[in-house]
Amino acid sequence: MTDRIASETLCARITDADSAAALIRPGETIAASGFTGSGYPKAVPQALARHMAAESAAGRPFRVNLWTGASTGPELDGALAAVDGIAQRLPYSGDPVAREKINRGEIDYLDMHLSQVAPMAWEGVLGAIDTAIVEVTGIRSDGTLIPSSSVGNNKTWLDRAGRVILEVNRWQNAALEGMHDIYYGTRLPPERVPIPLLRPDDRIGTPYLTCDPDKIVAIVETDAPDRNLPFAAPDATALAIAGHIIEFLRHEVSRGRLPASLLPIQSGVGNIANAVLSGLADAPFDPMTAYTEVIQDGMLDLLDSGKLRMASATAFSLSPQAAARLNANMTAYRDRMILRPQEISNHPELVRRLGCIAMNGLIEADIYGNVNSTLVMGSRIQNGIGGSGDFARNAYVSIFMTPSTAKGGKISAIVPQAAHVDHIMQDVQVIVTEQGLADLRGLSPQQRARLVIERCAHPDYRPLLTDYATRAHGGSYGLHAPSLPGEALSWHQRFMATGTMLPS
Amino acid sequence: MTDRIASETLCARITDADSAAALIRPGETIAASGFTGSGYPKAVPQALARHMAAESAAGRPFRVNLWTGASTGPELDGALAAVDGIAQRLPYSGDPVAREKINRGEIDYLDMHLSQVAPMAWEGVLGAIDTAIVEVTGIRSDGTLIPSSSVGNNKTWLDRAGRVILEVNRWQNAALEGMHDIYYGTRLPPERVPIPLLRPDDRIGTPYLTCDPDKIVAIVETDAPDRNLPFAAPDATALAIAGHIIEFLRHEVSRGRLPASLLPIQSGVGNIANAVLSGLADAPFDPMTAYTEVIQDGMLDLLDSGKLRMASATAFSLSPQAAARLNANMTAYRDRMILRPQEISNHPELVRRLGCIAMNGLIEADIYGNVNSTLVMGSRIQNGIGGSGDFARNAYVSIFMTPSTAKGGKISAIVPQAAHVDHIMQDVQVIVTEQGLADLRGLSPQQRARLVIERCAHPDYRPLLTDYATRAHGGSYGLHAPSLPGEALSWHQRFMATGTMLPS
Repeated sequence: MTDRIASETLCARITDADSAAALIRPGETIAASGFTGSGYPKAVPQALARHMAAESAAGRPFRVNLWTGASTGPELDGALAAVDGIAQRLPYSGDPVAREKINRGEIDYLDMHLSQVAPMAWEGVLGAIDTAIVEVTGIRSDGTLIPSSSVGNNKTWLDRAGRVILEVNRWQNAALEGMHDIYYGTRLPPERVPIPLLRPDDRIGTPYLTCDPDKIVAIVETDAPDRNLPFAAPDATALAIAGHIIEFLRHEVSRGRLPASLLPIQSGVGNIANAVLSGLADAPFDPMTAYTEVIQDGMLDLLDSGKLRMASATAFSLSPQAAARLNANMTAYRDRMILRPQEISNHPELVRRLGCIAMNGLIEADIYGNVNSTLVMGSRIQNGIGGSGDFARNAYVSIFMTPSTAKGGKISAIVPQAAHVDHIMQDVQVIVTEQGLADLRGLSPQQRARLVIERCAHPDYRPLLTDYATRAHGGSYGLHAPSLPGEALSWHQRFMATGTMLPS
Repeated sequence: MTDRIASETLCARITDADSAAALIRPGETIAASGFTGSGYPKAVPQALARHMAAESAAGRPFRVNLWTGASTGPELDGALAAVDGIAQRLPYSGDPVAREKINRGEIDYLDMHLSQVAPMAWEGVLGAIDTAIVEVTGIRSDGTLIPSSSVGNNKTWLDRAGRVILEVNRWQNAALEGMHDIYYGTRLPPERVPIPLLRPDDRIGTPYLTCDPDKIVAIVETDAPDRNLPFAAPDATALAIAGHIIEFLRHEVSRGRLPASLLPIQSGVGNIANAVLSGLADAPFDPMTAYTEVIQDGMLDLLDSGKLRMASATAFSLSPQAAARLNANMTAYRDRMILRPQEISNHPELVRRLGCIAMNGLIEADIYGNVNSTLVMGSRIQNGIGGSGDFARNAYVSIFMTPSTAKGGKISAIVPQAAHVDHIMQDVQVIVTEQGLADLRGLSPQQRARLVIERCAHPDYRPLLTDYATRAHGGSYGLHAPSLPGEALSWHQRFMATGTMLPS
């Protein structure tokens, strides 16, 4: 036994990464841990990639289907994609190598609502899981598993997989033990019952994952950090967006439409989200809670300041500096954080019950407020829809935020018509850019269009949008939401042809 | 006191429709009962329309905001729209006169998820309700109200309105008493709790609506039928669609992915939906339940046959013949039907928990399975999104069905890109036309496109779609979901210019 593996039976299954990877056959469906660069397996996937490369060089192509919680790291997505080892990928990918392969049509990518992955896996329509590869912090004497820095779909993968490979990662803080809350009450209908969670800090499960020990075919010890990427300091654009959102929230509190401590906040990842969270540290909302997907740097700051009482999520997504701070003070943070399975962190039932304030990014919004979160120019995947749909539709207030332009002004984030839609106008209540904030609640499409153009569009594009809206009003088939199909996507066409959405 | 109004206090407020309508002032927000042509007020709105016409003729325009459960009838939507009396309309409209005004840009129409109307009204962002006009079957001695043939948002309207006008409709069957289940446990966050409903037949509330008697300013007695429209007998197209769906459900049962009695069915309204329900009468699923928005003719047939054990909905939507049959046997049907508030009949929490099999219509789907349910040519409102989003996203299986063409073949229901999106591809699992059924679960966008074109498109359009998909694969910005923005909406453009989507 080791200090991380307290079960003698399971100690006997410790092996090296290459031996573990050798158990995997071509065509398998691999269900791995990992969510937003946290808690993914690091050694076995790299060994598998080496094996795939050798097989491929010998004329025996070797590909697998790869399922995870969400994005992972270069040792998993990157390594397997680089050797053309991924046939099918779900439910989310953020890896640059994999992104290129997807956009060359070489990987079948299923971009899914993150709350729906586990239920659909149980339903059986996605197919069977051959091998689960799950990183854990440790194994207890009774065989139960201490999760690591993300929970994701691990409960489901361990339950459903034919066999299981564990990576026990010494880099993960042993003091993570006790932070997790694994709910084992989900069922398939007609046996589903209410999820008994009433507050973000309710614990409704156990701190440990369970796995049939007979299925565990290999255990690999590792000592490798998560893929924690640095955050840039917020720029003027991010600070302006954060300012507009905080002003809006203050207004809602003053009108009595939000409690003084707000409602549980959900925030996407990235520099703008972090700027908003930083801005909340100086805002008068106290004490806040978070019911969200990931705990990022800004949330750690809010916890430190005392403004955030607690945060519930399914994973960490931290810079190396913040990860070091977390690890140095894990026991203090542990009582104010809960990591849950993503079907619970993102569950529509809970998002609606708790009344989350959802804040998510976007690629483009059209004048009516239909939002494209995933497909650049309508066809090229950026990352995926992730949990944005789980939260936006069921939130108490659904906010989408973006700089008003991209690529140095050559792309407008506000367009006549979105080239692809992930969030329909009914699910988009507030749009914010550095130019301003449009509160679209209670407005008809034409009223929405006027406000989006006036408040959110960049001045370089505003007259073009007004011109389109005016002409659409004259030539549209119907005037409920006027459009000109012949030129609705011409801005995208122009960008593809000339490199800018601005006319010459 | 009368046999329908057992409260002496309230009897004193009986008046005529014109006097009641005279209480309403220009600019008010009117919240009326009514859902799918059932249970809407019939006398006061017509009196209001006469008053509006007179005022308008005298140079004093008179308009109101009109909120309801969903669609109503010509005596409400039609009458007010005809005199230009509607400034703002939510959350759904199916009236032909109102549709024309909306599509001329003369009515601000908010097309909302039906489950979200009551919560948003409570939140306060839609504004205040001045007058509620609610049809009931009767008033009990304690002042509680016996709902009529729809529940819709009546609980919320009665709670939130400044004053209340009741129509007591003698045409509504007195034996409706006891059929309704009005849940009074909804709250605003952070006070929301789980909705305690585990089965479609659970009763979680009371059979009666409550209203502060001091707010009731007028009671008008009526004796007028609901707007019950005849259904056409299913044609070959509808029967073919029904056949494909039933074959699919049998397959799912045989694979063990659905119980032999299925899961609670949700069905939209219309001839195709009715054909599917008729087809289920001869299918081996037994005993089924329904958790849906409306009870239409086909469900009554299923109840009669014993195949359907019970149906939960928020309203009836029957032909005159079926309404007569229901009314003649109300006491027998009453124990097998429950009418609930629409926030409960359509609640995402409950749709997901129960695992509904959702079957909804569409206007067009694109090759990736993004669905347009509302806007013809992307701009002209047909009716509205209704409850389709509430059900489709949270369903166990989400089916969309349509004939493969419309307007005698001049419009293809399968297009390169949807001109507007109400249901994103993640929420569209199965598409069915008379040509066939495409099960899109577990498929990437390109896999989906091949199947949708092959199984669902009409042969006249199939080669054109294949040609588009092939060329998109060659010229797309990315190949995750290939598209050509320059011609993605050209079919709509062609139809607008030439009257057909087929090239000349």
